[in-house]
Amino acid sequence: MNEEGLRVAGMTGMDVLSVSQYEPAMLREVFEVAQRMRSIVKERGGADILRGRVLAALFYEPSTRTSASFIAAMQRLGGSVIPITQGVQFSSVSKGESLPDTIRTLEQYADVIVLRHPEVGSAREAAAAASVPVINAGDGSGEHPTQALLDLFTIHDELGRLDGLHVAMVGDLRFGRTVHSLTRLLAQFDVKLTFVSPEILRLPLDLMNEARDAGLAVRETYNVADVIGDVDVLYVTRVQKERFTDLAQYEELKSFYVITPELMKEARDEMIVMHPLPRVGEISPDVDSDPRAAYFRQVQNGMFVRMALLASVLPPHGGRSDEA
Amino acid sequence: MNEEGLRVAGMTGMDVLSVSQYEPAMLREVFEVAQRMRSIVKERGGADILRGRVLAALFYEPSTRTSASFIAAMQRLGGSVIPITQGVQFSSVSKGESLPDTIRTLEQYADVIVLRHPEVGSAREAAAAASVPVINAGDGSGEHPTQALLDLFTIHDELGRLDGLHVAMVGDLRFGRTVHSLTRLLAQFDVKLTFVSPEILRLPLDLMNEARDAGLAVRETYNVADVIGDVDVLYVTRVQKERFTDLAQYEELKSFYVITPELMKEARDEMIVMHPLPRVGEISPDVDSDPRAAYFRQVQNGMFVRMALLASVLPPHGGRSDEA
Amino acid sequence: MNEEGLRVAGMTGMDVLSVSQYEPAMLREVFEVAQRMRSIVKERGGADILRGRVLAALFYEPSTRTSASFIAAMQRLGGSVIPITQGVQFSSVSKGESLPDTIRTLEQYADVIVLRHPEVGSAREAAAAASVPVINAGDGSGEHPTQALLDLFTIHDELGRLDGLHVAMVGDLRFGRTVHSLTRLLAQFDVKLTFVSPEILRLPLDLMNEARDAGLAVRETYNVADVIGDVDVLYVTRVQKERFTDLAQYEELKSFYVITPELMKEARDEMIVMHPLPRVGEISPDVDSDPRAAYFRQVQNGMFVRMALLASVLPPHGGRSDEA
Repeated sequence: MNEEGLRVAGMTGMDVLSVSQYEPAMLREVFEVAQRMRSIVKERGGADILRGRVLAALFYEPSTRTSASFIAAMQRLGGSVIPITQGVQFSSVSKGESLPDTIRTLEQYADVIVLRHPEVGSAREAAAAASVPVINAGDGSGEHPTQALLDLFTIHDELGRLDGLHVAMVGDLRFGRTVHSLTRLLAQFDVKLTFVSPEILRLPLDLMNEARDAGLAVRETYNVADVIGDVDVLYVTRVQKERFTDLAQYEELKSFYVITPELMKEARDEMIVMHPLPRVGEISPDVDSDPRAAYFRQVQNGMFVRMALLASVLPPHGGRSDEA
Repeated sequence: MNEEGLRVAGMTGMDVLSVSQYEPAMLREVFEVAQRMRSIVKERGGADILRGRVLAALFYEPSTRTSASFIAAMQRLGGSVIPITQGVQFSSVSKGESLPDTIRTLEQYADVIVLRHPEVGSAREAAAAASVPVINAGDGSGEHPTQALLDLFTIHDELGRLDGLHVAMVGDLRFGRTVHSLTRLLAQFDVKLTFVSPEILRLPLDLMNEARDAGLAVRETYNVADVIGDVDVLYVTRVQKERFTDLAQYEELKSFYVITPELMKEARDEMIVMHPLPRVGEISPDVDSDPRAAYFRQVQNGMFVRMALLASVLPPHGGRSDEA
Repeated sequence: MNEEGLRVAGMTGMDVLSVSQYEPAMLREVFEVAQRMRSIVKERGGADILRGRVLAALFYEPSTRTSASFIAAMQRLGGSVIPITQGVQFSSVSKGESLPDTIRTLEQYADVIVLRHPEVGSAREAAAAASVPVINAGDGSGEHPTQALLDLFTIHDELGRLDGLHVAMVGDLRFGRTVHSLTRLLAQFDVKLTFVSPEILRLPLDLMNEARDAGLAVRETYNVADVIGDVDVLYVTRVQKERFTDLAQYEELKSFYVITPELMKEARDEMIVMHPLPRVGEISPDVDSDPRAAYFRQVQNGMFVRMALLASVLPPHGGRSDEA
């Protein structure tokens, strides 16, 4: 098969740890490869460029969505997967093995390691120990870079550009890892950002300043209704009841953050609604049939972006990278 | 490779939800394809006709046997599997995600979804949400159609016909999902049915009437010994102690439903003993070496029937079905 | 592809149950194939000689390391895997199914079964029931033959020979299954053995006698420092606190069994340090960068040895072995 264009040059052997690794030029290349991956999947299910490659999916926390996305991405490229997605805590690890030892063990079997771990910094620790590429699939309240990349890809793919867009982030902006990473990525482009949240769930000040320092127009409000008519992207996340000490306040506010068909009547024709999923009521299922509802396409884009990353970080010729 | 005859025409994109979807003509076609699948597995392990296809095995309840059968079936056809067979309850779902959302997420990654779920109707709900084929691998006390199809295939395969046979169902006929589905399938043929169970575990009246309305000769008895000498098929299921409030009654009756070498001496030479497995004492291991013991061949037939179904419901050319 | 040399002749259909099956001539052949497997993995990731083959990995106890090793081995040979590595206890088995029934079910789907089970003798029971090869991946305090084979392979591979070597076993020699199996294998060669352990964790007498009866020079000591300067192989295992009733004794002794860079200064240049992993403090991470630290290479050798075994026990032509 012609593998032309199915890798981003210069990424061989690279870890995927943080969105801060990605500048606009590289992002555009990743997105081009992801679009080619989509064409190939639609045409013939996948490509065979990672035949003989093995991915170890090491999930210390279960995450059906993310692990399934990586597994499908690897398999559609002809590679195979060691799924360690359940019960890690009952096995070697419970015998007190350190994360670096677990990683150095798995790299004896696998050519790339995808790691989900509850502790901030664990992906970086793993990458330091590993001679094969490590992909961070979420390290606690730290980062989840492939989620942010698929989010950005979706915006670019759906609207054809990033510069000049007005993006509103909605919901829990204080604790939402995906919102933080996406904000950092968007700060590299000429976008207008509006943050829509209850007072107690406002975006942390350092992130707000980071966006402002990058020269972005930034605004905050409490109610989606205030911005729905003006945005190109409405990025919705959940407002969790548990975050509120005053439940009366929660009850008063929660409807401000629910997307309904009525609300969508106020929105532009060419805008999109996104959500990292799972959702629990913050977008009405009645919105699903609206062509502007992009969240399931967003899910599939995750597979295409991960295919692009896997194909790029694995060395282009046969053999393992650690043949020292 | 020549793919001739490895699909049932007209099934592309179809869900497999209920035995009621299958009429004799289609059943015969499924069985012919299943027999070809067996030849291919015996000759060369499998075929490569589903290369680039991905199956999501979504099991809300663990079922080693059924999930292993589907996984092997997909892999022997060159396809790959996302195994979500454990701990679904700890993941997205526990965050309150609806079944339709989980399904709409998985169909972004996979070309076909196999679902096992504790609630009746869940497979139908999933199929309504999905644009890819959904295969029901058991929905609570509802249906388990691929089990019934493999049962019927086994009878046809072992005895060369369905019409004219005398089939006895033994054990828990009240709650046994497999017995109910098989009874419905057999009602399409000219068979004689005998139901052998304790009083409290008799076949529900509506099923009994369904069989009678279809014109079948139907009889009931309490003791396998009454019918063993006359049957072509003895389909055995477990009589669970837990069903009895009067344990003395259980102790008195249980031996009526245990198949032993002694009992088998009364049976015809060309009959078969079947069981959906797992068994716990209701068939003596001493019967295993009897050539009439068909229950392990029945297990393997499950793989062949599932290979036939997977090859038939997935679109024949490259690409995903939902390329909208 | 040229499959020349990727199988050990005469092993087709064989179970792998115990190290006692392997005599020096066969060991050498397994090791030669394992080395070829390594070359192929380094060059092109794997070979395709087990395409269409299915391995059932049946783990009644979780063991990330061992299951991952077998999964990677099978996948790198083009085969596929049914992973039953979690929650077996919640499924069929908890419904009371016997091990032989579970095995006879899985062999309907798979061409080879890898079994990990907490009970001694379970692998032998499974092999007696199965018509496909069964590989023992640990049966309680019984055997774990593939671990012993990879240990022996590592010694041979790293040092170029077995005869004439001085091997010290360190730590828990009383309960350590890997130490017992490796001792039995080494007894077939002309080696000198030193056993280093606390009094209460000394090697069982029968094994000691077995080694002596085989004509080996055997010695015991309490302190690694006594032998470090003279050994070719230091095989380290953990001394578990839980084994001691007198914790003061544990505290007094434990440092005798910890390998540090200081201790390594006393060792020869061409010796190796091994460990079955996981480790918890008994080898300082500062030793990892020492070229004599062979324990992660040992891990990878496990994959190569398992590739050699899988390729050898599976029949060389297409088709399943039980086509009766």
